[in-house]
Amino acid sequence: MKAAIMGFGTIGSGVYEVLKVNRRVIERRVGSPIDVKYILDLREFEDQEIAPLIVRDYKEIAADPEVDMVVETMGGVEPAFTFVKTMLEAGKHVATSNKALVADKGAELIRIAREHSVSFLFEASVGGGIPVIRPLLECLTADVIEEITGIVNGTTNYMMTEMSANGTDFDEVLKEAQDKGFAEQDPTADIEGYDACRKIAILTSLIAGRQVDYQDIPTEGIRGISATDMKYAKILKRSIKLLATSRKVGDTYVARVAPYLLPASHPLSKVDGVFNAIFVHGNMLGDGMFYGSGAGKLPTASAVVGDLVEIARNLDKNLPIDWEPEALALGDPQETVERFFVRSSSAMSLIEDTFGPVNLIEAQKDGEHAFVTEPMSEKEFAAKTAAIDLISMIRMG
Amino acid sequence: MKAAIMGFGTIGSGVYEVLKVNRRVIERRVGSPIDVKYILDLREFEDQEIAPLIVRDYKEIAADPEVDMVVETMGGVEPAFTFVKTMLEAGKHVATSNKALVADKGAELIRIAREHSVSFLFEASVGGGIPVIRPLLECLTADVIEEITGIVNGTTNYMMTEMSANGTDFDEVLKEAQDKGFAEQDPTADIEGYDACRKIAILTSLIAGRQVDYQDIPTEGIRGISATDMKYAKILKRSIKLLATSRKVGDTYVARVAPYLLPASHPLSKVDGVFNAIFVHGNMLGDGMFYGSGAGKLPTASAVVGDLVEIARNLDKNLPIDWEPEALALGDPQETVERFFVRSSSAMSLIEDTFGPVNLIEAQKDGEHAFVTEPMSEKEFAAKTAAIDLISMIRMG
Repeated sequence: MKAAIMGFGTIGSGVYEVLKVNRRVIERRVGSPIDVKYILDLREFEDQEIAPLIVRDYKEIAADPEVDMVVETMGGVEPAFTFVKTMLEAGKHVATSNKALVADKGAELIRIAREHSVSFLFEASVGGGIPVIRPLLECLTADVIEEITGIVNGTTNYMMTEMSANGTDFDEVLKEAQDKGFAEQDPTADIEGYDACRKIAILTSLIAGRQVDYQDIPTEGIRGISATDMKYAKILKRSIKLLATSRKVGDTYVARVAPYLLPASHPLSKVDGVFNAIFVHGNMLGDGMFYGSGAGKLPTASAVVGDLVEIARNLDKNLPIDWEPEALALGDPQETVERFFVRSSSAMSLIEDTFGPVNLIEAQKDGEHAFVTEPMSEKEFAAKTAAIDLISMIRMG
Repeated sequence: MKAAIMGFGTIGSGVYEVLKVNRRVIERRVGSPIDVKYILDLREFEDQEIAPLIVRDYKEIAADPEVDMVVETMGGVEPAFTFVKTMLEAGKHVATSNKALVADKGAELIRIAREHSVSFLFEASVGGGIPVIRPLLECLTADVIEEITGIVNGTTNYMMTEMSANGTDFDEVLKEAQDKGFAEQDPTADIEGYDACRKIAILTSLIAGRQVDYQDIPTEGIRGISATDMKYAKILKRSIKLLATSRKVGDTYVARVAPYLLPASHPLSKVDGVFNAIFVHGNMLGDGMFYGSGAGKLPTASAVVGDLVEIARNLDKNLPIDWEPEALALGDPQETVERFFVRSSSAMSLIEDTFGPVNLIEAQKDGEHAFVTEPMSEKEFAAKTAAIDLISMIRMG
């Protein structure tokens, strides 16, 4: 069987490496080997073993009837979308790790794949190497999925873990993460929660079977989390995690990306460092969690190649995915009832006028009061905090 | 589609309940509903809604061409084997939660299913509701699985967790677990590790693609673990867990069931109470873990019904599983190199003559010395401990 790789960056070169190192075991599982015939990349790779495979024009791959499957590891929506669409229309299966592409164009590419009797798979787009999409679609099929909540961004989880362990502040930890290669030079997509938002949009689309637009999901990043917040977390015996969460409410879901204070009893509270985990609650299953390397060259490439094996085992057909293009109207996030950890510089009298009697947590900074509210809706909380001077707030998970 | 349930105990009645409560969502996923036409059980169920479904003779189910799929939740090898074999030979798919049956007869039933173009699935036989078998076989296909280690017995994990949290001793915790229904009146299969042994035999068979006889796996239970051991574990900042583990060594695997002292950094160290988790290390993936309810009526039934959905989506064919009947010669467990935590009543001079200089851990009981050895093989350790008075030993994970 012949494959092509579009984009020879970190993940793309990882795919090449996995196919090479595990060639024999993959051949045993598929029944025949998977060879890379083309690599699409604009850079020069002179004197490297892949040099003879390099092509500049994606149409060359689409036109070659020998190519059965194509890997897309370019990132971004365009030109990835045009390239992938062309491959599917040319009757080639596609596996991708590109969450931006899947969140934006997943439903459309699934439809095109179906129409051309090929598959469009994207296990690596959420949770890197952790199998989560296929287990969700093919194993947890006896359950109504009532909640799916993930730590799906390794960069921010590494930062939260370091801030918690060492008391360092945000800017220092970000620089350290950049120096170690755990954060990009432009870390916006990670620390503002945009990356996590696309991933929970994909997961929610899959459990709902309908398009969930990531633009509809309220998204807060971790830029507001300080070393002082971490001190309060310790007093509360909780850890602060950036969660991407989706809960069933009636016939739809309410989704959010935000930092949460998780109790030690929550399985996600102990997911540290660059690891990712996706927690699932089913109405019959109860709690389950998938844990592992959510990013990185080889773990992510492992998931892409796992998709290639699944494609190779089902070469003559479309592997159906239930993700219809009509957008799902998400539930109102303002109606979600939660408790909130609050830091305020207002006088106690004003705080208690607004929130009623509160149990103060020992202040970790001069001139502020800290407490946890009773359960209330986001809307109610917003109204109350408008009346006080809010330093920061974090939702209680 | 018509199903039958053989054995209406805890899991069997759970399967009925899952099919009933989630009927609508299952119908949507399959394309048509799954109805239970027969329940095989020898007891009386007068006045209950299932009474009209009860049959006494399994041959009645086998003879009904309307029945597409059969659930086996009777437990034990016989008569379950005879009944399941008959169903497969009659062209009916089978899903089971019965680890004793799968460990003993899995390869044979997979062959019979293949010959009759039906499927034999058993996701619920390991890890209860946690999807692990299908993710292993269908997702982690790009990897060489170098290690699979599970906390796969909820009873013993509950007991270890309680002993660690409350300092209670073995017999007291066992009684408490029995009172709460977490341990059976005859707890032998759980506390001696026999249950965990069958589960790691199944997992090892699946990753090796060959029969692994559970009788070949050295198995120690938790009966030797005391409140004093838990005190030492705390000093070592470790937790004691009953692990079922299998590691790739050359072209085969070395398997063992035994209590281990796990460092806090190991993902399995934080799996507490009745929860189960299966840790996997792939040569490309790195570390991954599947976590959730490893037992209980509804979680286990959820996994059985998940298999029924997969069967219903593939009604006209055999879902292949690579598990050949020729027995795999496991690696020699005496060659495994580990460190060992040791408690001995021998004099220090004898201990140091035998093990060389040791760093003593503060004794938690009079008249004993405690220490951790250097890495050595099981064989070497056995030879050394023959020379001293051993109170107890636990392997370091």
